[in-house]
Amino acid sequence: MDFDRALVIAPHPDDEILGVGGFIKKLSDAGCEVTVLTVSGHLPPLYSEEVFATTVKEAEKAHILLGVAHCEYLKIPATKIGDVPISELNGKVIGAVNDFKPSLVLCPYPDRHIDHRLVFDAAMVATRPIGAAGLNIKLIAAYETLSETHWNAPHIECNFVPNWVVDITNSIEVKKQALSCFESQISPFPGPRSIKAVEALAMFRGTQSGFAYGEGLHIIRMTS
Amino acid sequence: MDFDRALVIAPHPDDEILGVGGFIKKLSDAGCEVTVLTVSGHLPPLYSEEVFATTVKEAEKAHILLGVAHCEYLKIPATKIGDVPISELNGKVIGAVNDFKPSLVLCPYPDRHIDHRLVFDAAMVATRPIGAAGLNIKLIAAYETLSETHWNAPHIECNFVPNWVVDITNSIEVKKQALSCFESQISPFPGPRSIKAVEALAMFRGTQSGFAYGEGLHIIRMTS
Amino acid sequence: MDFDRALVIAPHPDDEILGVGGFIKKLSDAGCEVTVLTVSGHLPPLYSEEVFATTVKEAEKAHILLGVAHCEYLKIPATKIGDVPISELNGKVIGAVNDFKPSLVLCPYPDRHIDHRLVFDAAMVATRPIGAAGLNIKLIAAYETLSETHWNAPHIECNFVPNWVVDITNSIEVKKQALSCFESQISPFPGPRSIKAVEALAMFRGTQSGFAYGEGLHIIRMTS
Amino acid sequence: MDFDRALVIAPHPDDEILGVGGFIKKLSDAGCEVTVLTVSGHLPPLYSEEVFATTVKEAEKAHILLGVAHCEYLKIPATKIGDVPISELNGKVIGAVNDFKPSLVLCPYPDRHIDHRLVFDAAMVATRPIGAAGLNIKLIAAYETLSETHWNAPHIECNFVPNWVVDITNSIEVKKQALSCFESQISPFPGPRSIKAVEALAMFRGTQSGFAYGEGLHIIRMTS
Amino acid sequence: MDFDRALVIAPHPDDEILGVGGFIKKLSDAGCEVTVLTVSGHLPPLYSEEVFATTVKEAEKAHILLGVAHCEYLKIPATKIGDVPISELNGKVIGAVNDFKPSLVLCPYPDRHIDHRLVFDAAMVATRPIGAAGLNIKLIAAYETLSETHWNAPHIECNFVPNWVVDITNSIEVKKQALSCFESQISPFPGPRSIKAVEALAMFRGTQSGFAYGEGLHIIRMTS
Amino acid sequence: MDFDRALVIAPHPDDEILGVGGFIKKLSDAGCEVTVLTVSGHLPPLYSEEVFATTVKEAEKAHILLGVAHCEYLKIPATKIGDVPISELNGKVIGAVNDFKPSLVLCPYPDRHIDHRLVFDAAMVATRPIGAAGLNIKLIAAYETLSETHWNAPHIECNFVPNWVVDITNSIEVKKQALSCFESQISPFPGPRSIKAVEALAMFRGTQSGFAYGEGLHIIRMTS
Repeated sequence: MDFDRALVIAPHPDDEILGVGGFIKKLSDAGCEVTVLTVSGHLPPLYSEEVFATTVKEAEKAHILLGVAHCEYLKIPATKIGDVPISELNGKVIGAVNDFKPSLVLCPYPDRHIDHRLVFDAAMVATRPIGAAGLNIKLIAAYETLSETHWNAPHIECNFVPNWVVDITNSIEVKKQALSCFESQISPFPGPRSIKAVEALAMFRGTQSGFAYGEGLHIIRMTS
Repeated sequence: MDFDRALVIAPHPDDEILGVGGFIKKLSDAGCEVTVLTVSGHLPPLYSEEVFATTVKEAEKAHILLGVAHCEYLKIPATKIGDVPISELNGKVIGAVNDFKPSLVLCPYPDRHIDHRLVFDAAMVATRPIGAAGLNIKLIAAYETLSETHWNAPHIECNFVPNWVVDITNSIEVKKQALSCFESQISPFPGPRSIKAVEALAMFRGTQSGFAYGEGLHIIRMTS
Repeated sequence: MDFDRALVIAPHPDDEILGVGGFIKKLSDAGCEVTVLTVSGHLPPLYSEEVFATTVKEAEKAHILLGVAHCEYLKIPATKIGDVPISELNGKVIGAVNDFKPSLVLCPYPDRHIDHRLVFDAAMVATRPIGAAGLNIKLIAAYETLSETHWNAPHIECNFVPNWVVDITNSIEVKKQALSCFESQISPFPGPRSIKAVEALAMFRGTQSGFAYGEGLHIIRMTS
Repeated sequence: MDFDRALVIAPHPDDEILGVGGFIKKLSDAGCEVTVLTVSGHLPPLYSEEVFATTVKEAEKAHILLGVAHCEYLKIPATKIGDVPISELNGKVIGAVNDFKPSLVLCPYPDRHIDHRLVFDAAMVATRPIGAAGLNIKLIAAYETLSETHWNAPHIECNFVPNWVVDITNSIEVKKQALSCFESQISPFPGPRSIKAVEALAMFRGTQSGFAYGEGLHIIRMTS
Repeated sequence: MDFDRALVIAPHPDDEILGVGGFIKKLSDAGCEVTVLTVSGHLPPLYSEEVFATTVKEAEKAHILLGVAHCEYLKIPATKIGDVPISELNGKVIGAVNDFKPSLVLCPYPDRHIDHRLVFDAAMVATRPIGAAGLNIKLIAAYETLSETHWNAPHIECNFVPNWVVDITNSIEVKKQALSCFESQISPFPGPRSIKAVEALAMFRGTQSGFAYGEGLHIIRMTS
Repeated sequence: MDFDRALVIAPHPDDEILGVGGFIKKLSDAGCEVTVLTVSGHLPPLYSEEVFATTVKEAEKAHILLGVAHCEYLKIPATKIGDVPISELNGKVIGAVNDFKPSLVLCPYPDRHIDHRLVFDAAMVATRPIGAAGLNIKLIAAYETLSETHWNAPHIECNFVPNWVVDITNSIEVKKQALSCFESQISPFPGPRSIKAVEALAMFRGTQSGFAYGEGLHIIRMTS
């Protein structure tokens, strides 16, 4: 499957690495131009500007490792996405889609973290199969964010079951390095977002689909 | 998306046309080798051998129109698939997968018709991501069979919701011609399997995804 | 099934026609008094007052064709329904139910458009089987809104599967005329809301249930 | 809602009373002709002929109380429905539908008891919206069978959630009397099929929909 | 199963009794320390301060009967929970979890009442399996709130299906007494929240699991 | 949670170890008497008697490591469970439950392997909350079987989502040793049933619930 332009929508810095860090590396290695749109961030009032600056720096390091071409930050404070008028939030994500014209869009699965749900909603609106940019998208899929995604209430809320697994055997090491850039976000084993937990999930997803390591996605709309 | 070899598994002659006739034409036009595996047929004791022969002839005409390269008939009498020992049925479908080594497998959605459910089950076993042939498959998806699929009980049984729509604007006419070959199976409008109903479904699936005409599929496993 | 008073709740002008235009005509022809409650509209700040006035005029023309007896506009700006305090929004819809005392209520299916979800929620509260007006309701069902309803994410969000199909063979032509009144909303084929797409959906729903043309609904609560 | 002819399909004698005994009485009181089709029975090899004869006598007493017009017994031994060739089982149920031409069909919800699932499947095939008899059906719904239905595995198998509740306030007493006829099947409180449990379920279903006592159903297909 | 400390989260006074009044009594009798956290209340602007004071007095009486050790009121006005910034609401519920360190948490099922959904969300965040307090929790389950829970739209929204039933045969009488304390909230039969409806639900849940009376819960996360 | 007698139902030798090997060890260490009921086996006609004997020997070694007290083999040939009359299969599993009187029953999740589904069905019948043995059961849960469980078709068939995670940090090593006894069944990494895949799944399940290693289960019915 060939994609020339991939837009990865992340609620917060590091979600895109947790979800599809290996896939991003694989895409950029294959010549695909990858843009990351980071909607929210560790900003005041819950966090200081310094925390945000730190995570952006960590993200920049990680993105270089993964070959990300561009990164845009919408700078909405974490847990405050719901305070932004919906038409304004949608407008910004639609703008990114219209500007970048991706053929592949990867967004967060709607899960325990309210920001993930709101970003998912905005991504769904922005990728509707209408308009030149919308019709250009060949595939939209939602990635899992370790821990938050698996904390959805079983059978009350939606539960992540992948229908697409990307072989990241060749990029699992870089994914782990990229995650290690986020000193502020990663916890030691057995933390739910420890490097070992990330590796375990990749091994589980991979081995169930014929690979050593994989990243699972939920395909929302594919056209061909 | 490029597929070199596609295996289309059909419970009975014509299901593959109803479900993915337009896609088959598109695949063969693009140079993909398409094999149709027809598991069951209108055979004794419910039908006479003549009826089976008629449907096979109809299928052959249709397949020529669509560019199908090979067609294999397992010749299990309709509604009797459940009488075949499971390991034998699975063995036959596994054999077809091992022999043909497809990168794309299209199978029926499990629905009102018991044969569709049993063929779906066998297809799921035969396409597990193990073994050389299994690991060669890049995509498995289930197609809808007009009427039977839409007669699953809402919210009691699984209900078809496509996550993949194939643009068949350029092959809808050939699909309709191919269906017209099945004089024994197609009914006049407003029959649930009339040509007009087939066209309406294609228009509905297509327009909801940016095309004039489309075929909807439920992706079961994609790897890349 | 006989209904003397039907309340159709629409998020925006034209949703009621897309969803149940044919059914409205059938109801009014049978002597049922039909009221349309339009919750939101193309109003400032996203739209000018002129746009709203235009859609209201279009709706009025359409309603005459369909035999709608009354239409009420709550005039909440589109995408701003979430800004109205929930108790106020609920109060207004409850008021409409209490005033009109319908035996049948038709509301939008909760889908891609946030307004549809919020109106659905309010309709669910307003039709609870309590109080004189609530207990008078014999049937509540949700209609599909072409395109928005089919853009819900498969298997992550709820997906429309009808358990009630209304034969609109005798009113499909009037439904198409009523939709044609909405010059500002309808797009040419293969637009997802083109007249041809509307007709295709009606033909698909109808033929799967024994009719030439039908409108599908999801029954939420029926009592008898 | 007016039905002139109702077909109630029961896996075993008493299921129809547990599920819709009150509704049957209500229908017959309103002049509807009610036929009960009992597919299986307590027959050899698991039971003696005497047990079957006893349950039939019990059913006859119950049916007189409820105003059932006809009762047909297919006499397939309990738990052996799966041994009957599917086309033969379907043929018998289709035959009953074709002979009786019901406008309303009530069938068991597919649940813990394998016979209930097989009878549900046959009912689904027999009521497809095709053919004169199929197109004559206005409503098909599945009733709950106390205990078996509530022993489906939560969220692994389908779980009964009613979308139709019938007011049986005026027939709950007769329903209890009809159930009392089944001395061989009813257990003392707190047995899952005790008269008190039946009354509790009716009160629960009723009070959640505005009635003192109700019977819950899952509508599968309604047309109008 | 032994729990030393149970936290019951209630949207409004009386929800905890409707849902798990019998279980609370059983827990306190067994020596478990039970805290009730009441998030919202009948406060201005929708209600007068007097109404709130009345419901608190009613709750206090009920809690004494049930052996509740502590009760905390967050005093957010009913239907206004959505107006509290999410991080603030979450902070308060997290605070209660951190202070009390429960091994068992019982929360409302997300249902028709918007407050129930928002409290459910906050409970899900506050009980994530991280941090000392989070890791101390052995079981989190959602209880049903008679009427609101059963007014979720079938198959559009989540529908309550219990996977845990607690035997309350020995505490059903006290539960009914505790509910009777809420003169302002309980309605006469056949009201959906009448004492008889509560008893019917308990009998239905109980008899389907081997008890005379039971309370049903949906287990969200159990660890052992 | 204290269980004195646990019955683990396995379709084939090794399924019980893949699913709950660590939990079995934990239970036996805590003084619980564990019985394994193995329903099917690698027997003629698909396998030679030698293969069956080999897997039984492997199982015996594994069971000693895990502290299993008893193991019973029903010796039904693999993939032939469907050929056993349902009442006979149910009778055998019911017999095991009646004889052993477990307070905890663990059974396979119904998945890709038809034997797993049939054993699940029989386990559901055998553990109904009726009769002395049925009422003695406090908890029934379904375990995942690496690979087969994860090959259920997403959103068409049921998909495993655990609501119970057992901490097996102290028994993961013994679980791996026990699995290593099955030389005939375990494949090298990245095989879907390699020891590394088993460890990865345990680490994924564990870290998402606060442990280093865990086993996930789907609770079907808990009573207390």
